[in-house]
Amino acid sequence: MPRYALKIEYDGRPFCGWQRQRDLPSVQGAVEAALARLDADVPSIAAAGRTDTGVHATGQVAHCDMTRDWDAFRLGEALNHHLKPLPVAILACAAVDEDFHARFSALERRYTFRLLSRRAPPALDTGFVWHIRHPLDVQAMRDGAAHLIGLHDFTTFRASQCQAQSPVKTLDALQIEAFDIPGGVEYRFHLRARSFLHNQVRSIVGTLERVGAGAWTPDDVKTALEARDRAACGPVSPPDGLCLTGVSYPSDPFA
Amino acid sequence: MPRYALKIEYDGRPFCGWQRQRDLPSVQGAVEAALARLDADVPSIAAAGRTDTGVHATGQVAHCDMTRDWDAFRLGEALNHHLKPLPVAILACAAVDEDFHARFSALERRYTFRLLSRRAPPALDTGFVWHIRHPLDVQAMRDGAAHLIGLHDFTTFRASQCQAQSPVKTLDALQIEAFDIPGGVEYRFHLRARSFLHNQVRSIVGTLERVGAGAWTPDDVKTALEARDRAACGPVSPPDGLCLTGVSYPSDPFA
Repeated sequence: MPRYALKIEYDGRPFCGWQRQRDLPSVQGAVEAALARLDADVPSIAAAGRTDTGVHATGQVAHCDMTRDWDAFRLGEALNHHLKPLPVAILACAAVDEDFHARFSALERRYTFRLLSRRAPPALDTGFVWHIRHPLDVQAMRDGAAHLIGLHDFTTFRASQCQAQSPVKTLDALQIEAFDIPGGVEYRFHLRARSFLHNQVRSIVGTLERVGAGAWTPDDVKTALEARDRAACGPVSPPDGLCLTGVSYPSDPFA
Repeated sequence: MPRYALKIEYDGRPFCGWQRQRDLPSVQGAVEAALARLDADVPSIAAAGRTDTGVHATGQVAHCDMTRDWDAFRLGEALNHHLKPLPVAILACAAVDEDFHARFSALERRYTFRLLSRRAPPALDTGFVWHIRHPLDVQAMRDGAAHLIGLHDFTTFRASQCQAQSPVKTLDALQIEAFDIPGGVEYRFHLRARSFLHNQVRSIVGTLERVGAGAWTPDDVKTALEARDRAACGPVSPPDGLCLTGVSYPSDPFA
């Protein structure tokens, strides 16, 4: 069957997450329903990142197998037509070899987490930022983050229901940008890794927020990591600020 | 009566615009209702920019007169409490002299208009960008924009219902940024002037979009301006991408 890669953007708020669940609206279910309008025999699709409820994407990648050949541009256009009015958009569509797998071929996932620190609630970015009312020390957060870079057992930063075979992962980058905005500061946490554990980004951001607030020292992050104990983690952040921004493959299917 | 300046952020989508209208939800009405919870005798408030339906703000400025003295920080917090759950937030509140007037003291208004050029619809920014499906020539738009900088009779770019006494205005800046985004390009038009005519920004952006698309030449903008005729204007853009980002005063009330 001819295989196609899809680059997908979505607003995670109305969905139970990427993965299809009985009786709940999912992003996977939405894309599969649009595919079913084009081809009754399309098998279920696979994605690079199984984002949780309320988590957004600007660069999710999935693949689908069609029973007949499609012009890739027309397939993307047809899917966008059938996805309306859901907040899911196919940004790019490309024919790929049958050995391309959106999940298993991925070499890197990139996530960005937006944290809004100001007194006033967000009027424009509701659902797209984690809003806190106190100031944060960005240098302390960066110092804490430095302990997490590299190859570690991330058991502390892993949801109890995580299905990954091993908690050992390499975190390639964790950069924290700070922008002055009206009335406060917006922080953007940029994380890169070959793969992430379930709730790993939200566990890391929630812990670093405690460091920024002064409740934890940067070295407490090292202690928590080395504990290899879920109970040593800081609070898990809400999903609101999290966005899957990109996935890399040995060769870019959309190039 | 003690006077306070308010810096206000809002999502314009659920409102008929800034200005209070009978039986329609307005931003002014929302802020006045919150003020009425604090002080039954507050007169109506005035704002720097009377934004239209669907137009957003991150830096609107208004002033209000209270019957008693307030700590400015507490007044802002109390207003945010009473504004919930509406998408309106008080970003800053400051005591000002009685000769401060949010509208008449303003020396400069700044607007940003976001235009998304890509095939796929926006999944995350619905209502915050004008979405078009064709590519644009940014240099042509900049060349067209250059004709509008400075002191001109902007009758061509003025809504027929505009109430300003004179169509002669000075446009101090019109800069166009272009960002590559997944699947396309986002353009941001940044405009600065002491004051704007009704629909001036949307008329200018709608006209420059025609230049970017190649339907107009940059010099056609000059011809349209010099016609001083509303009928010579290009199509008026939708409100979705427009945001009032800031207002300047002889001295910054929030400094």
